[in-house]
Amino acid sequence: MKVGIVGAGMVGSAAGYALALRGGASEIVLIDHNEKLAIAQAEDIAHAVPFAHACVVGAGGYEELEGAGVVILAAGVAQKPGESRLSLLSRNAEVFSEVIAQVRRNAPDAILLIASNPVDIMTEVALRASGLPRERVIGSGTILDTARFRSLLGTHLGIAPQSVHAYVLGEHGDSEVLAWSAARAGSEPIARFAVQVGAPITGEIRERIDAGVRRAAYRIIEGKGATWYGIGAGLARIVQAIRDDQRTVLSVSIVTPEVEGVQDVALSLPRIVGRAGILTTLMPELAEGEAAALRASAELLKETGAGLR
Amino acid sequence: MKVGIVGAGMVGSAAGYALALRGGASEIVLIDHNEKLAIAQAEDIAHAVPFAHACVVGAGGYEELEGAGVVILAAGVAQKPGESRLSLLSRNAEVFSEVIAQVRRNAPDAILLIASNPVDIMTEVALRASGLPRERVIGSGTILDTARFRSLLGTHLGIAPQSVHAYVLGEHGDSEVLAWSAARAGSEPIARFAVQVGAPITGEIRERIDAGVRRAAYRIIEGKGATWYGIGAGLARIVQAIRDDQRTVLSVSIVTPEVEGVQDVALSLPRIVGRAGILTTLMPELAEGEAAALRASAELLKETGAGLR
Amino acid sequence: MKVGIVGAGMVGSAAGYALALRGGASEIVLIDHNEKLAIAQAEDIAHAVPFAHACVVGAGGYEELEGAGVVILAAGVAQKPGESRLSLLSRNAEVFSEVIAQVRRNAPDAILLIASNPVDIMTEVALRASGLPRERVIGSGTILDTARFRSLLGTHLGIAPQSVHAYVLGEHGDSEVLAWSAARAGSEPIARFAVQVGAPITGEIRERIDAGVRRAAYRIIEGKGATWYGIGAGLARIVQAIRDDQRTVLSVSIVTPEVEGVQDVALSLPRIVGRAGILTTLMPELAEGEAAALRASAELLKETGAGLR
Amino acid sequence: MKVGIVGAGMVGSAAGYALALRGGASEIVLIDHNEKLAIAQAEDIAHAVPFAHACVVGAGGYEELEGAGVVILAAGVAQKPGESRLSLLSRNAEVFSEVIAQVRRNAPDAILLIASNPVDIMTEVALRASGLPRERVIGSGTILDTARFRSLLGTHLGIAPQSVHAYVLGEHGDSEVLAWSAARAGSEPIARFAVQVGAPITGEIRERIDAGVRRAAYRIIEGKGATWYGIGAGLARIVQAIRDDQRTVLSVSIVTPEVEGVQDVALSLPRIVGRAGILTTLMPELAEGEAAALRASAELLKETGAGLR
Repeated sequence: MKVGIVGAGMVGSAAGYALALRGGASEIVLIDHNEKLAIAQAEDIAHAVPFAHACVVGAGGYEELEGAGVVILAAGVAQKPGESRLSLLSRNAEVFSEVIAQVRRNAPDAILLIASNPVDIMTEVALRASGLPRERVIGSGTILDTARFRSLLGTHLGIAPQSVHAYVLGEHGDSEVLAWSAARAGSEPIARFAVQVGAPITGEIRERIDAGVRRAAYRIIEGKGATWYGIGAGLARIVQAIRDDQRTVLSVSIVTPEVEGVQDVALSLPRIVGRAGILTTLMPELAEGEAAALRASAELLKETGAGLR
Repeated sequence: MKVGIVGAGMVGSAAGYALALRGGASEIVLIDHNEKLAIAQAEDIAHAVPFAHACVVGAGGYEELEGAGVVILAAGVAQKPGESRLSLLSRNAEVFSEVIAQVRRNAPDAILLIASNPVDIMTEVALRASGLPRERVIGSGTILDTARFRSLLGTHLGIAPQSVHAYVLGEHGDSEVLAWSAARAGSEPIARFAVQVGAPITGEIRERIDAGVRRAAYRIIEGKGATWYGIGAGLARIVQAIRDDQRTVLSVSIVTPEVEGVQDVALSLPRIVGRAGILTTLMPELAEGEAAALRASAELLKETGAGLR
Repeated sequence: MKVGIVGAGMVGSAAGYALALRGGASEIVLIDHNEKLAIAQAEDIAHAVPFAHACVVGAGGYEELEGAGVVILAAGVAQKPGESRLSLLSRNAEVFSEVIAQVRRNAPDAILLIASNPVDIMTEVALRASGLPRERVIGSGTILDTARFRSLLGTHLGIAPQSVHAYVLGEHGDSEVLAWSAARAGSEPIARFAVQVGAPITGEIRERIDAGVRRAAYRIIEGKGATWYGIGAGLARIVQAIRDDQRTVLSVSIVTPEVEGVQDVALSLPRIVGRAGILTTLMPELAEGEAAALRASAELLKETGAGLR
Repeated sequence: MKVGIVGAGMVGSAAGYALALRGGASEIVLIDHNEKLAIAQAEDIAHAVPFAHACVVGAGGYEELEGAGVVILAAGVAQKPGESRLSLLSRNAEVFSEVIAQVRRNAPDAILLIASNPVDIMTEVALRASGLPRERVIGSGTILDTARFRSLLGTHLGIAPQSVHAYVLGEHGDSEVLAWSAARAGSEPIARFAVQVGAPITGEIRERIDAGVRRAAYRIIEGKGATWYGIGAGLARIVQAIRDDQRTVLSVSIVTPEVEGVQDVALSLPRIVGRAGILTTLMPELAEGEAAALRASAELLKETGAGLR
C-alpha cells in the first residue's frame, strides 16, 4: 500500500522511518512546502531501506499521492510570538483545508490519518474540509498516551507493555482520562496483579503514573524540544492495521456522534481499526469519576472546536 | 541464543521452522534417535533461512547442545496397540529421563521447555529427572489452548486475536478451564464488548467456543492426524520471551507449590516469562465455578502424576 | 492482500504457515477437495496467528477466493502403482485445468503461483488453462534450489546465506543448472572469497555442493517422506514480493519466449518480481558449459511438455 | 542482548529507535552528559515499544552499561567558530578517551561500535584508548555509503536495493571508493543487468550515482541539518549481526594491518560480522583505478590519523 505523508518534519519523518523499518508500506511519499526538507528526509529514510524491507521512499508534490491508501497529515504552522492559541488554531485550520483539498483531489480513496496538534480539533477540521465519512478521518488521538500508560504500568509491574491492556480516553491533551478502572495486566485487574507481583499501586504510585502519562510530552519537550519517536511508531501501527485489515482495538480519535451527552466531537475511545477505517467504536465501562472526566474532556473539546467555526 | 530441539517429528520441526521464520534463535539444533529424520528436518528448515533471518540450522547428537539457552523436549514414544494410557506414560517417562540426563550433561545452563504430551505430567517428570529449580522446567501447557480461545473469540467478535486477552488454565487436556470471567476485548469485559459489536455471547455461543477450544485438537487430529503449526509457533513464542527477557504474561505449566488447595502439581496459570524462566506466577481472580473446575483439574493431574511415581 | 491456497497438503499448509508467521497476507484461504483436511490445516495455522501478525485464516470453497491477489496452486494427484510418469502428468494436468477454471472464475485478478510438481510443466499447463498473460502465471521453479545453493555455499564459507548471491537455473529437477560462474559472496567471485576465508572450493567441494543442491529433495524425502518447509517459505517470499511490489530478483519459472534457442518453455531464470507478476527476465552471463546445460534443460522440458499436448 | 548508546543526539537516538522497532535488543541504555536529553530520548523511544517488540529502554550513567554486549559510541563535541578540523579532532579524541575508559570499566566484554565522525579516525582513537583487540572496535564506516550506493542503483534499475550487491570502500568521506567493477544486480554484473532492463549505466548516470552517494550527506544536511535515519538503521543492522552471530558481509571500518601498502589504518572493507566482532576481512578484487583510489583513501586517513598522535 502506498502511504502519503504531508509534513516532513520530525513527526512525519519518524512515521515514515517506522513504516520503512516495520515493513508497513510498499511506497512512502513525503510532501512538504519546504521541498528540500521533504527530499532530504525521504533520502535519509531511503538509506535505511536496504537494512529492512524493500520499499520505495520518495518526495514529491500532491500529484504523487495518486493511489495512496492512507495519507498522514503531519503538517502545521508554528506559533507566532504573542499569538493566541485560538488564532494559531485558525491559521492551522486554514492551512489544513488547503492541504486536504489537494489530498482529496489526488488520492480520493485514501483514509486520512491526522497527526497535527491539537489533534482532536484538527480531526474535526479535516472531516469538514474533506467531506469524507467520519470513519475515514482518523486522528492519532491518544494512541500515544495509551502507549505511555502501558509503558509506565509495565515498568512498574516489571512486565512487557505488551502484556498491559489499558487505554487513555478523551482529548489528546491535559483533559485526557486514564481508564484505570478497566486496566489489566494479562487479563487480571491491574491492582490485583500489582499486589501479586509485590508492586502494589498505592495512591502515590497512581499519581506518579498519571502524571507520567499526562506530562510525558512536556517532559520530553523539556529534554529534546519535541516528541516524535513514539508518535511515529503509533502512526505506523495505525497504518498497518488499515493495510492488513487487522481489526485491532486502538484508542484513536474520530468525530463521535455522542459521548457522555456531548454531540459530534472528535476524541479518543477504543475503536476497531481495519481497511475501511474505523469499523466500530467501543464505549468503555468507566468508574464514576472517569465518566465525569470524559464528559469534561468532551465538553472542553466541543467548546474549543466551536470557537473555530 | 542457541536452541536445542529434542524430537524432530512434526511438533519439534514446526517449532524450529517458526523460530527460523520469526528470527528467534541464532542457532537451532535438532536431535532425534532417528538421525535421518533429524537431518532431513534440519535441512528442510535450513532452506527456509535465506527467505528469513540468518540462523544456523543443523542436526546432531546431544553434544551439539553445548551452550544452548533453551532446549525444547518434543520427543515421545508411540502408543502400542492395546497399551494402557498409564503404561504408555511410564514408558514415556523412562525415555524422558534418559533424554534429560543427556541434555543436562551437555547444556547445564539451558531452560527446559517441555512439549511432549501429556505435557503437564511430562513437565513434572522433567523437573524430577533434571534436578533443576521449578522455574526452569516449563511445559507449553495451555499456551496453545489460550491461543485457540483468543482466536475463536476474535473470530466471533470480528477483531484481531491480538486484541483479545483471555487465558485457559489448568491441565492441557479435557479438564482445562476457560477463564471466561476474566476475558477481555481491548480492556472491556468480553460480554459487554460483544454486545457493543452486535455479537452477544449467548449460552449457545459460549458452549460452541468452549467446545471449539476444548475439542480443537481432536478436530484437527481428525482432519490431519495431529497438530503442529499452532504449538510450533507457541513454543517459538516462549523461546523469544526467554531470549529477550521480555517478561510477557503467558499461560504455561510449571510445578506449582499450591493451587486451589492442591500441592506440587504442574499445570498452567498466567506466568511472567523472562530470561530466568518463570519469574512470577499469577493466581487469577476466578468465578466460583471456574475455581472449582481448576481445583478438579489440579486434582486430576495430581492423581495421574501419583500413578507414575 | 488475500492469498488463496489450493491444495492443503504439507506444501500448501507450510506456505500458509510461513505467510502467517512472516506477516505476508491479511487473509489466507485454504481449499482442498478433502474439506476436512483444509479445515484442520486452517485451524492449526490460525492458532499460530496470536503469536505473530493479525491475519484471518480459513478454509472454504472456490467462491472464497473472491478478491484474492495471489492464488497458490499446490494441488496434485498421487502416482498409481505402475503408472507411467507421463500418464501421471496427464492426470495432473487434467485436475489442474479444472482447478484453474474455478480459480479464474472466482479470482479473475489473481496472479497464479504454481507449486505442484513437475512445477515447470505445470506452469505451462496453468498458462494454457488460464488464458492469463505469461507474466501472471509463475512457477516456484528453482527458488528453493537457489536457496539450497546459497545455504550450502554459506555453510561452506562460514557466512550467512543472505550474503551469498547465486542462482540455480532451468528445470526444477535433475537437469537444473547451478550458475557457479556468476556466484558471489558479498560482491566477490565465490572462488576468490573462498580462498580468502581459508575454505577454497576444490573440485571435490564443488561436486559435493552440486550434489547437495541437486539431490537435496531426494535426501530429505529419504528422511521425512517429502519436503515442505523450504518451499513453503519460498512461496511466502514470492507472495511478499508481489504484495509489496518489491521488484526483487528471484529465480522463478514462467513460460519464456526463448532461452538458448528453445522457444516457449517454462523454466527458471532470474526475474524481477513485483505487483504485476514478472516485470523483467534476466538472461544471465553463463560459462560455456552452463549455457549448454541450460539449453539441455530447456530442451528436456520442451520435450516433456510436448508429450502432454 | 543489552545495548548501550553513548551520545543521545539524533544519530544515537535513531539507532535506539531502529533497534526497538527491529527487535534487535532486549535492553537499550542511553547515556549522555546532557542527562535530560538522554532521559527524553529514552522515554520517546520507550513509547514506541508497545507498537513493536518488548524491550526495556532507559537512560542512565555508565554503570548502567553492566552486561552490555555492544556499546555504540555516538558522542562528539561541536566545532567552535574558527576552529581547525585538526583541533576539533583532538578535542573529540580527548572526549572519546574518557568515554571509552568509562565504558571499558563498566562493560568490559562489550564490542565497541563507533558512529562518531570522522568515523575512521575515531575508530583508531577508540582502539588505542580501549586496548581491545582490533576485531572488537568497529566503526560504522561506509555501511551507510554502501546502502546509498545500493539504493541509488536499485532506483536506477527499478529493483529492490536488497537485490543490488555493491560496496563502498575506504574512508567514510570524500575519498571513499565506489567499487563499481564488482557491483552486481542479482548475481549479474551491474552493467549487463542495466542493459537488459533498458536502463544502461552511461557515463553520465555513473557520475550522477557516484555524486549521489558521495554527496548524499551534504545534500541531506542542506535540507535537514544532519543525517540520522539511514545511519541509525545501519547501526542497528550491525548490532543484529553481532547479537545473532549472523556472519553477514558488511562494509565496516576496523584498524586494518595492511591495505594497498598502507599499514594500520582504519577504513572500510567488506568484513564478516558476527558475535566475536569482525571474523574476517575480505580484500575485494578491484579495477586498477579503484585500487589506486583505495590506496589514496588509505593514505589520506593514515596522514590525518598521524596528525593526531
